[in-house]
Amino acid sequence: MNGKKSVQEAFNETTYRIVGHGNRDVQVLKEAFEAVENNTASDIYGTGKVIEAFQSEMAKLLGKETAVFFPSGTMAQQIALRIWCDEKGLKTVAYHPLCHLEIHEQDGLKELHHIEPVLLADKDRLITLDDVLQMKEDIACLLLELPQREIGGQLPEYKELEAISAHCRAHGIKLHLDGARLLETLPYYGKTAAEICALFDSVYISLYKGIGGIAGAILAGSEDFTKPSKIWKRRHGGDLISLYPYIISSDYYFRQRVNKMQQYYEGAKELAALVNQCHAVTTLPNEPVSNMFHMHFQMSRERIEPILSSVYEATGIGLSAAIRPTGEHTSYCEISIGDKYADIPKEEVKGFILLLDKLMRESSSEQRSK
Amino acid sequence: MNGKKSVQEAFNETTYRIVGHGNRDVQVLKEAFEAVENNTASDIYGTGKVIEAFQSEMAKLLGKETAVFFPSGTMAQQIALRIWCDEKGLKTVAYHPLCHLEIHEQDGLKELHHIEPVLLADKDRLITLDDVLQMKEDIACLLLELPQREIGGQLPEYKELEAISAHCRAHGIKLHLDGARLLETLPYYGKTAAEICALFDSVYISLYKGIGGIAGAILAGSEDFTKPSKIWKRRHGGDLISLYPYIISSDYYFRQRVNKMQQYYEGAKELAALVNQCHAVTTLPNEPVSNMFHMHFQMSRERIEPILSSVYEATGIGLSAAIRPTGEHTSYCEISIGDKYADIPKEEVKGFILLLDKLMRESSSEQRSK
Repeated sequence: MNGKKSVQEAFNETTYRIVGHGNRDVQVLKEAFEAVENNTASDIYGTGKVIEAFQSEMAKLLGKETAVFFPSGTMAQQIALRIWCDEKGLKTVAYHPLCHLEIHEQDGLKELHHIEPVLLADKDRLITLDDVLQMKEDIACLLLELPQREIGGQLPEYKELEAISAHCRAHGIKLHLDGARLLETLPYYGKTAAEICALFDSVYISLYKGIGGIAGAILAGSEDFTKPSKIWKRRHGGDLISLYPYIISSDYYFRQRVNKMQQYYEGAKELAALVNQCHAVTTLPNEPVSNMFHMHFQMSRERIEPILSSVYEATGIGLSAAIRPTGEHTSYCEISIGDKYADIPKEEVKGFILLLDKLMRESSSEQRSK
Repeated sequence: MNGKKSVQEAFNETTYRIVGHGNRDVQVLKEAFEAVENNTASDIYGTGKVIEAFQSEMAKLLGKETAVFFPSGTMAQQIALRIWCDEKGLKTVAYHPLCHLEIHEQDGLKELHHIEPVLLADKDRLITLDDVLQMKEDIACLLLELPQREIGGQLPEYKELEAISAHCRAHGIKLHLDGARLLETLPYYGKTAAEICALFDSVYISLYKGIGGIAGAILAGSEDFTKPSKIWKRRHGGDLISLYPYIISSDYYFRQRVNKMQQYYEGAKELAALVNQCHAVTTLPNEPVSNMFHMHFQMSRERIEPILSSVYEATGIGLSAAIRPTGEHTSYCEISIGDKYADIPKEEVKGFILLLDKLMRESSSEQRSK
C-alpha cells in the first residue's frame, strides 16, 4: 500500500476487475474457436456461409432487410454517411460535437469523403429535438449516438427519439444510428433492438464493446443501402479475403452475452450508487442508463492516480488504468460493466469504495492544510 | 469419369492439389495459434508487442526503416500513392493497365483519393523503361508490380528494373513496389528482398499469397512515409483495436514458408514444362519466373471444364476450379505452387498430364469431325 506502483502496474496485478469482460488476450480468440470444426470454410471476399449466416442473424436482430459485416465501425459509419450524402447530392451531415467521427478518426470523413459536419448541441449535453428544429443548414443525414459515450453514456428519452425520427422523415433527412453500444441500452429503454432501429434508416453496432468480440462491426439497412456499402467497403480496403477470425468470435460472444445486458446495467447502477457516496467523486450520469458511466474526480490526475494505485494494491480490485484530466484540478475515467463485475463479492466492492473514500478524504485534508 | 460433376465439385473431392497450401479453413487459424500462450496480449490500435515486433521483423526483411501492418493491400497501396501525391502536390500516378488498383478495387483510388492513373504499357506486356521515358504526363509516383500477376506473373530483367529506378530517382518520381508476391520472385532474381526493395521508395507485400496467412499486408518505407500511413490507416477504418488474428498467423506462416520459395519456384517450372507438352495448352510465361503461371487453353471454358472435371475425378488430383474465358474459343486458369504440390508423387502428376492431353486431343478431333 505504498502507492509507488503506477496505476497501470497496480491495475495489472489485481485479482478482480470492476470493468469489462477480462483481458484482451489470445485466450479470447482461442475460447471462441475451441468448438469450431477445423474444416469450417473461410468466408471469401464477403461471401460464404460463415459471413452470410451471421449477417442474416444481425439483420434479424436489428429488424433491417440486410446487414454487412465490417472490420471496423470507423469504416462502416463513414460509408453510411457517404451513401446518404450521395443519394441526396449534398455533402453535409449533422452530429454531436463529441461524435466518434469528429474526434477519433483523424478526420477520415472530411479527408476521404469531403463531407462536412454540422456540430449539433453543446459538447456536454445530448442533441435535442430543438437542436434539430433550429438547425439552419440543409443536411443529408443526422447521426445520433446511443448512448452518447463521451458524456458518460447518456440517452435521450424515447419520446424525444421518436420526435426526432418523425421530424427527419418528414423533412427528407436520413437518420443514422451510431449504436456501438446499442444492445447495452435495451434494458433502460425496455425495447427490442429492432424497435429502436425502426426509427433509423441505417444502423451500426460494434461487436467488441458489450459483446466483447475481438473486433468488427455490423452496418444494417435496406438492400438499397447495404449494396453500395459493400462497394465502398472494397474501396476502403475492408473487403478482406477472410474476416472469419472476427466473425466467428463475434458470433460466439454475441450468443454468450446478448442476454446479459440487464445484468451489466444493474451492475452499473449499483456501482454508481456506491461511487456517489465517495468523497469528491460523482458519476455521469448520476444514475446510469446503460452498462457505462463516467467517474469524475474533484482531483487532478496526478493526485488521484497514486490513490487508486493504493486502493488496487490493498483490495486486489482494479477499477481503471486510464485516468484522463478534464482540468487542472479535475479528472475522470470511463467505467463499463461486463462479465467481470459479477465475480467480485459485494462486501469486497464496498470495501473498495470505503477505502477509496477514506484516502480521498485524507488527501483533501492534506491539501487544505498545506 | 462421367464428367457430370461441375469443375468445382470435382475439385473439392480431390485428394491431391497441384496449387496452393491447402484449404482456406479454420484449421489455418487453429494451427497458427496452437503454440501461442493464452495470456499473449492483443495489440491495441497499432501498438503493443505483437504488432511492433512483427513490423520490425518485416522492416528488416525489406531493408526499410519502418513497416506497418495493414488489414489489406488494397488499403496499404491506395495510402502509399496518396502520400506520394500529397508530398508532390500532384494527383497523378502511373501503373500497368492490369494493376490491382485499376481492376480489383472498385476505383477506390479515384473515388476516395481523387488520384488519376496514367496506364503504362499494353495490357499484355510488362512496363519497360521506354514506356517510362516516353510518358508525357508528370506523375508523383510509378507503381510496379513484381511479378505482374494478371499476365501470368512475368518479371522484368533486373537491369531494366534498376534503370527504371535510376530514372525515377533522377526525375523526382517516387517508385512504389506492389510486391504482393515479392518473396516468390527472389529465387529467380537471386537477390534478397532488401536488395530489390532498395530500388523502391515504398513497398507493399501480402501475407496470404506465398506466405499463406489468413489476411494482411505490410507497407514499408522511411519513417517519414510510414508515419502518415498510420494516420491514413485510421481514416480508412483499418486501425483496428486488434489485428492479432492476422499478425500472429502471418508470423507463423512466414517462418514456415519464407525459405520454401525456391521449392515453389522449381515446382512451377517443372509443372509448366509438363503442361506445355499437352495438346492445346500453353503456359504464360513459357518458363515461370516465380511460383506462378497462367495455363491458356485453346478451348472455350464450356469445353475445358468437363474435361478437367473428368481428369480430377479419374486421378484424384485437383488443378483449379476457376477457369476464365479469354475469348469465344479460349480460356485460362491461374496456377500458384505452394506446399501442396510436393505431396503428389511425380508419377501421378505425369498421369494427370497424360490424361489431360488425351482428353483434349479427343475433344479436338470430335470438334473437327463435326
